Amino acid sequence: MPHHLADEIRTRLTACSVPSVVSTLFRMGYQNVFLRGVKPLAPGAPVMVGPAMTMRTIPIREDMRAALSEGKAESLQKRAFEETGPGEVLVCEAAGVTETALLGDMVTTAFKVRGVAGIVVDGGVNDRAAIEGIGLPVYAMGDASLPFTSHRHITALNAPIGCGGVAIFPGDVLIGDGNGVAAIPLSLADEVADKALYRERLEAYCAERLRQGAPIGTTYPPDAATIAAFEAQRGG
Amino acid sequence: MPHHLADEIRTRLTACSVPSVVSTLFRMGYQNVFLRGVKPLAPGAPVMVGPAMTMRTIPIREDMRAALSEGKAESLQKRAFEETGPGEVLVCEAAGVTETALLGDMVTTAFKVRGVAGIVVDGGVNDRAAIEGIGLPVYAMGDASLPFTSHRHITALNAPIGCGGVAIFPGDVLIGDGNGVAAIPLSLADEVADKALYRERLEAYCAERLRQGAPIGTTYPPDAATIAAFEAQRGG
Amino acid sequence: MPHHLADEIRTRLTACSVPSVVSTLFRMGYQNVFLRGVKPLAPGAPVMVGPAMTMRTIPIREDMRAALSEGKAESLQKRAFEETGPGEVLVCEAAGVTETALLGDMVTTAFKVRGVAGIVVDGGVNDRAAIEGIGLPVYAMGDASLPFTSHRHITALNAPIGCGGVAIFPGDVLIGDGNGVAAIPLSLADEVADKALYRERLEAYCAERLRQGAPIGTTYPPDAATIAAFEAQRGG
Amino acid sequence: MPHHLADEIRTRLTACSVPSVVSTLFRMGYQNVFLRGVKPLAPGAPVMVGPAMTMRTIPIREDMRAALSEGKAESLQKRAFEETGPGEVLVCEAAGVTETALLGDMVTTAFKVRGVAGIVVDGGVNDRAAIEGIGLPVYAMGDASLPFTSHRHITALNAPIGCGGVAIFPGDVLIGDGNGVAAIPLSLADEVADKALYRERLEAYCAERLRQGAPIGTTYPPDAATIAAFEAQRGG
Amino acid sequence: MPHHLADEIRTRLTACSVPSVVSTLFRMGYQNVFLRGVKPLAPGAPVMVGPAMTMRTIPIREDMRAALSEGKAESLQKRAFEETGPGEVLVCEAAGVTETALLGDMVTTAFKVRGVAGIVVDGGVNDRAAIEGIGLPVYAMGDASLPFTSHRHITALNAPIGCGGVAIFPGDVLIGDGNGVAAIPLSLADEVADKALYRERLEAYCAERLRQGAPIGTTYPPDAATIAAFEAQRGG
Amino acid sequence: MPHHLADEIRTRLTACSVPSVVSTLFRMGYQNVFLRGVKPLAPGAPVMVGPAMTMRTIPIREDMRAALSEGKAESLQKRAFEETGPGEVLVCEAAGVTETALLGDMVTTAFKVRGVAGIVVDGGVNDRAAIEGIGLPVYAMGDASLPFTSHRHITALNAPIGCGGVAIFPGDVLIGDGNGVAAIPLSLADEVADKALYRERLEAYCAERLRQGAPIGTTYPPDAATIAAFEAQRGG
Repeated sequence: MPHHLADEIRTRLTACSVPSVVSTLFRMGYQNVFLRGVKPLAPGAPVMVGPAMTMRTIPIREDMRAALSEGKAESLQKRAFEETGPGEVLVCEAAGVTETALLGDMVTTAFKVRGVAGIVVDGGVNDRAAIEGIGLPVYAMGDASLPFTSHRHITALNAPIGCGGVAIFPGDVLIGDGNGVAAIPLSLADEVADKALYRERLEAYCAERLRQGAPIGTTYPPDAATIAAFEAQRGG
Repeated sequence: MPHHLADEIRTRLTACSVPSVVSTLFRMGYQNVFLRGVKPLAPGAPVMVGPAMTMRTIPIREDMRAALSEGKAESLQKRAFEETGPGEVLVCEAAGVTETALLGDMVTTAFKVRGVAGIVVDGGVNDRAAIEGIGLPVYAMGDASLPFTSHRHITALNAPIGCGGVAIFPGDVLIGDGNGVAAIPLSLADEVADKALYRERLEAYCAERLRQGAPIGTTYPPDAATIAAFEAQRGG
Repeated sequence: MPHHLADEIRTRLTACSVPSVVSTLFRMGYQNVFLRGVKPLAPGAPVMVGPAMTMRTIPIREDMRAALSEGKAESLQKRAFEETGPGEVLVCEAAGVTETALLGDMVTTAFKVRGVAGIVVDGGVNDRAAIEGIGLPVYAMGDASLPFTSHRHITALNAPIGCGGVAIFPGDVLIGDGNGVAAIPLSLADEVADKALYRERLEAYCAERLRQGAPIGTTYPPDAATIAAFEAQRGG
Repeated sequence: MPHHLADEIRTRLTACSVPSVVSTLFRMGYQNVFLRGVKPLAPGAPVMVGPAMTMRTIPIREDMRAALSEGKAESLQKRAFEETGPGEVLVCEAAGVTETALLGDMVTTAFKVRGVAGIVVDGGVNDRAAIEGIGLPVYAMGDASLPFTSHRHITALNAPIGCGGVAIFPGDVLIGDGNGVAAIPLSLADEVADKALYRERLEAYCAERLRQGAPIGTTYPPDAATIAAFEAQRGG
Repeated sequence: MPHHLADEIRTRLTACSVPSVVSTLFRMGYQNVFLRGVKPLAPGAPVMVGPAMTMRTIPIREDMRAALSEGKAESLQKRAFEETGPGEVLVCEAAGVTETALLGDMVTTAFKVRGVAGIVVDGGVNDRAAIEGIGLPVYAMGDASLPFTSHRHITALNAPIGCGGVAIFPGDVLIGDGNGVAAIPLSLADEVADKALYRERLEAYCAERLRQGAPIGTTYPPDAATIAAFEAQRGG
Repeated sequence: MPHHLADEIRTRLTACSVPSVVSTLFRMGYQNVFLRGVKPLAPGAPVMVGPAMTMRTIPIREDMRAALSEGKAESLQKRAFEETGPGEVLVCEAAGVTETALLGDMVTTAFKVRGVAGIVVDGGVNDRAAIEGIGLPVYAMGDASLPFTSHRHITALNAPIGCGGVAIFPGDVLIGDGNGVAAIPLSLADEVADKALYRERLEAYCAERLRQGAPIGTTYPPDAATIAAFEAQRGG
């Protein structure tokens, strides 16, 4: 059963940027939520928000590869591709190995049709050019062309993983934009959405004032007067 | 005399993507044909296909640099730039050193005029912005501005080299697109072209079915029924 | 008081490319002026030219972070953002640490309004997507979202620094384009501007000839006859 | 219940070197069994042989660290230290993070008393100098002094892991000496022990002949005559 | 005037190990005090304890090197070597550049005679073999043979620096042993000495019990009963 | 035919340290002669001096590996092991790939018997522990256990190579000690031997004075008076 994220939390987060979410979590005491080295492949794709369907991998061994190719072992890759649900984000721990591709434009196409929210892997993908045209947010570390079983073996779905140096538990909320990807602990998603959205609006207000020539010293980070002015405008 | 590639092989390969070629070679037992870390500079350029004119380099030593600048030693760089022929790909082993530029927009311009197929170096180039506008496929690891003799010394042309961690023999067929570059052993080029082109068409068929909502489990990788349907459509 | 750069030097340098400047300095005996790993965030932004306002940082320690957040220590970050003057380039030594962001779109917006020439950091920035739209040249090593005090502590403004492996003294002239950033010793700026501009024009002449099919062997690097022809055309 | 390894397999493997085991597995089709970057801390310690008790970790998150320190979550670290049995090797996946120490001389001392066979981690340990004196084989990537919960969170014991880029399943046989560590699939341990021991003795024979001046061309790798002579001597 | 460290603090710290100091500081809220990648060259040397005389460097530029070699600029290297006082530790920020040597056996010899406490550099040194025999603690990242001015330029003495990723202020107390080096903020040195020494003795007590077969679960980390027994023995 | 080095040059160089040789070459204008990352395996072995027998390698391809194992292609590895002559140093370019071993204790034993001067590879070797006991100087980047053909293919013997980032031509003189390895251009060997030996003796004199308490400021680097005193003592 796919992980669930309340629509109204998703909506609020979709209006936020990754830096606002990361800054908000930092103020709440969480210092390590931004995935390192994981970059957007399709800059034009919309903001990605969704709960994590996780995939855990280890280096492959020749007997495992043979068992998979001979059909003697179940392919968790195939199962994950079939089961990642609408609104979910598939997140794969690939340990930074970019010599092999988790997936390419075919899976991306199928996920787009199915309504999957996005794909994140701290490893490689293939068909970058084709993926850019599909419109599904895909985040990866590099380009590869070998099948995934050339280097990695999937040992579990929906287990806790590390991805880009960040802890991700199944159901945690992933958010991605042009800056990269951050992971929000599920229990904090509502609070983070509120605070980050507030921050997003405050920053938009500050940016507008800066564009009009307000001095940066009082405008950003906003001092008490700037915040009060923002609150007043907002309330009004 | 430039290395030769039969037109009809070139034509078929030009219709393939790098991932299709790499997957095909993997199935034929070749696991290491995709150059690591070598990226396209001109994303808008056409697919690159051509036989390799290779260039072997080592770290430079001060007496070699002096001999070159004083005209006491032949510049193999100059010779390579003059002799790389129409349809060929100049491939330079630079050992990942990105502090120096093999070439820039001037050589790229001359090669474009001459009909050279492309340029590949696991090192640096300069004038990235200008190269993007020329329309010749150039693949490199980074941006540099120093003349090549600041760091590297060319010791041989058309010798076997390693580039991006891949073995390349003179005449091997290089193919490059937005995903990067792969090297095809010359003796396999015809077979690879056939198989990769088949794969390309099969994948296009699968992608179309996925876009129409076919389930990924049977569609990709395609099961027997999907392949049969593809064959039928193709034959009909 | 902001560092000053004579308008007519700035004008000439703005007509040059970074590779021309780096090659010129190399011929003058300066081998290490191109910043490694520092990339443009806003490819569409104009060429950046301006004297360096430098910022020196070290790893942060928890007592320093507390003192800053409690207002017991002066924030040099705030002061630098207020004091970087029109026409200057803010250059920050971040030692390649990309886990934290020196600044984001807010400061970029304020600098754009103020007429600052650009921003360079061998570390991270946030809000990449927003920065791309502002039109101020920003050069960095990566994307981050944490506040700067999460990892770095500013110890001095306008002290000598290293950035991207290059020595930069306050007032040195930074030039940046799509290739990256180079640092010109202030005392050499006038001479470099002359020579690089000459080189720029000579290369444009050579490129035009190459486009018309001139042989690369005599055209680039230009031999005596090509230079003479260029001089003649120029003089005429 | 601790993993078991038959005494007579253990005895034979203890007489082998890691290179002999790795070469033997390579000939059997296993190319990736030698852990990269994991070095012996106590060169004087005996050869390590034993089945793997595995420990899986991910990056830690602040709420997990708090739950552990407040006793609200079970410490798998404590459990692993209590339960690793006589003859076993504790193997921890730390993803190459050397900023934190899995353990130090205290745990090493307790393991030595208990008869644990050894410790392997692709991360850090502390008290290197003290560990060297204890006599238990410990293999790690570096020196650290922070408690393990500063960076890593243990999510499972006796699950499949990757360590030093190699797949390790619970019960797989780890062998370590001055060269480093290799992992033998449990089902192959008997066969590997036989073949590696044969190879060990053949190489000792070849080495003796080389020391007496035999030509390397026929002696190593041994040609048919050399192997026959070895077999004859051995049989006699 | 050399930085001073009270004898009785120095004495207590000399009885501690680096891991005890790092753990103590971690409990006091300081997470980043252990220098990364800086290794002891002379394992047999005594524990190093002393206040930091710091040296700040940037990449060198050809005009600075010329000025130094022609005597037109003061050599801060020479001054630092002359002025580092008895009991002090010379700490140099070299930014991880190991291609050049800060010093070798000559300076080490002079410092040994003068009573300098030790040398730390996150860069290279030369004459490793000779340094090992001198008996002065030296910590570095690698071996180099080029003179320091080949790559680095010293811009300040006794300014705040980063070394091995750790903030070091002039006068901070450096401690080094076989595990590596840690930096103690000067204002905390007394408190750290007390707590680390207590910890050192407690761990020695636990280790002794572990050697006698006490169960690790209650002995280390020590539970209340173990601590009480330690306190009783100590008091008695 | 083996490369030759005059005995009296060899004798003088054997009395020098690597840092003295590197400093001497630096003063002669050669900045890049010290191999990066190549470490001694047998610290107790004597100083290594000898002309280079070079070995050039590229990444292997599966068809080459098959041809070698089926005897359809000549093994240059075997030839090199047979032909490296007494007094020579075998130097292999392995491009920093440490996953495979060029050789192990068997070849080292044969070379010791034959009187080969040493072995240098910027890649891996196996049987470290055994090599340490043989007494032949071996320099490498790491430990590996796979046969060399698992990753590398030898394409030429006695061609120019890069090793550890340094240019090495066949016959160039390699010198190695506990600090690492340097390459001396053959044509400079005599001059370097003279100058480095002088420097060696001068430094020994300075060191002795430093041990007796002479001030470092005038003693090292030695001022005119110190040099004069050295010359006087030497002459007398």
